[in-house]
Amino acid sequence: MSQDYIKTSEMLNSLRVFFEENIPFNKVLGLQVVSLDMENICIRIDMKESLIGNPVKKILHGGVISSVLDVTGGIVAMAGVVEQMEGRSIEDVSRRLLKIGTIDLRIDYLRPGEGEYFLATGTIMRTGQKVSVVRMQFHNDKERLIAAGTGTYIIG
Amino acid sequence: MSQDYIKTSEMLNSLRVFFEENIPFNKVLGLQVVSLDMENICIRIDMKESLIGNPVKKILHGGVISSVLDVTGGIVAMAGVVEQMEGRSIEDVSRRLLKIGTIDLRIDYLRPGEGEYFLATGTIMRTGQKVSVVRMQFHNDKERLIAAGTGTYIIG
Amino acid sequence: MSQDYIKTSEMLNSLRVFFEENIPFNKVLGLQVVSLDMENICIRIDMKESLIGNPVKKILHGGVISSVLDVTGGIVAMAGVVEQMEGRSIEDVSRRLLKIGTIDLRIDYLRPGEGEYFLATGTIMRTGQKVSVVRMQFHNDKERLIAAGTGTYIIG
Amino acid sequence: MSQDYIKTSEMLNSLRVFFEENIPFNKVLGLQVVSLDMENICIRIDMKESLIGNPVKKILHGGVISSVLDVTGGIVAMAGVVEQMEGRSIEDVSRRLLKIGTIDLRIDYLRPGEGEYFLATGTIMRTGQKVSVVRMQFHNDKERLIAAGTGTYIIG
Repeated sequence: MSQDYIKTSEMLNSLRVFFEENIPFNKVLGLQVVSLDMENICIRIDMKESLIGNPVKKILHGGVISSVLDVTGGIVAMAGVVEQMEGRSIEDVSRRLLKIGTIDLRIDYLRPGEGEYFLATGTIMRTGQKVSVVRMQFHNDKERLIAAGTGTYIIG
Repeated sequence: MSQDYIKTSEMLNSLRVFFEENIPFNKVLGLQVVSLDMENICIRIDMKESLIGNPVKKILHGGVISSVLDVTGGIVAMAGVVEQMEGRSIEDVSRRLLKIGTIDLRIDYLRPGEGEYFLATGTIMRTGQKVSVVRMQFHNDKERLIAAGTGTYIIG
Repeated sequence: MSQDYIKTSEMLNSLRVFFEENIPFNKVLGLQVVSLDMENICIRIDMKESLIGNPVKKILHGGVISSVLDVTGGIVAMAGVVEQMEGRSIEDVSRRLLKIGTIDLRIDYLRPGEGEYFLATGTIMRTGQKVSVVRMQFHNDKERLIAAGTGTYIIG
Repeated sequence: MSQDYIKTSEMLNSLRVFFEENIPFNKVLGLQVVSLDMENICIRIDMKESLIGNPVKKILHGGVISSVLDVTGGIVAMAGVVEQMEGRSIEDVSRRLLKIGTIDLRIDYLRPGEGEYFLATGTIMRTGQKVSVVRMQFHNDKERLIAAGTGTYIIG
């Protein structure tokens, strides 16, 4: 196993810890990073009372869905940068990751947010030198597509 | 003061109470309806630790911003329906309001979410029979534009 | 072969003729419907001088791309309605198709529009009673993804 | 009148000529730059047979609207860069303008595109070092708002 490969997986692992434990609003959401490697990025949240947006229908608040999809897209954009910078020092990569931010976001709300848990995934559509574009999906525990999104992220 | 006018303002007041007190995730956000009449709709949130998205820069999580703008656009769309249905029974109006939901949302993140409090406003661009389109703004306590958005809402 | 199936394929065929021959701006674009059945919808345009947006780089105008993706999403939404109404009279289906229109559109420009020809495809994400959401892709003759989009269409 | 001011207005004037005369698809649209200075940017197109999208209702093709709004937003972003670089050489400014491109675009279709002519305007929401965000409007000859849009442009 090469030194670079170790660095990449270590970098992704520290990203995971950072997103789950160091960002206060992610803890409010109960955001869990289920998998985070170059091939597969998956974020999970569990339904709980505080995330409800419609007290009659007991469904997720739309803002919970947009929050999770924004984070998911950001992590996918970050993983793309980590891959692009393979072999560079951890300091260089960290400095670049700190500059990443959402430029804009589109969310399509397709079905009511019903379920006991939800999984968000994302696919990179373009990693440039300055901007990445990611498409995201948000499924419930019955594998129904609840929402979809597209995010544009500044990466350099 | 006409009976209809009373109904409209009462309807808007009960909307205010509903959004502030009955929606669990709005309470997590600390969402306050500062004003809600036909001319002026303004939503406020105060900065607090749990809403932070970047622990180094101490700025709002992007998901907080998208959540507040989605709610703001929804309330603006609802007020448009209340106005459109002036003179109809409170039951008719309530039934219609319950069907309102976000179809899609675009958020533009323009500047870092720094401030002690934030105000969100919205302007209706179109109220049709089926769909409303609203443009939203999110300013900080220095009146700097932090984010802008556009939401499409199903209203009938 | 059932009577209904004949109606569906006939309906789709007349849609094809309508989009290629009866819409003036589609003729300006040189829009061709390569395939239009329930499983596969594909639109083609060929590069020509009049569609250029950058005279130095000789690439497609962004507006050509957004135009083709809007039409593609509209046809996908229409095919979804035709499928939903299988077995209904051609008059009912036609009346419903005439009401279909774009509510909003997001286009992501991913790479320069270089190529001799381009293919646009779309996938329906949701067909409701009132609104359909479609994701579209725009590839060049080297199968490179040039642009992607999401469209929301009013369908009833 | 300062030398720099002359340069700025000259630069904007050559932009106007470039957009009207050197871009083939803009000529297909019949795009006219009505005004282009730092305070006011206005683009006009006239209705003509070839721009029609619905042969029964005789209204503009949605792609014409998205094309004009994309160009309008791009010109507003360019003017922002010209202002930002006031006092720099024409070569520096030109080199920077050549790099400007649309990252993504949202269009909201609010009303049917009926009219004898149409005017598009735009307001810059943010000019950063790398990205500009512009909101655009598209009105008809009766000053009715036909469509609105938001564009994100790479500027450096």
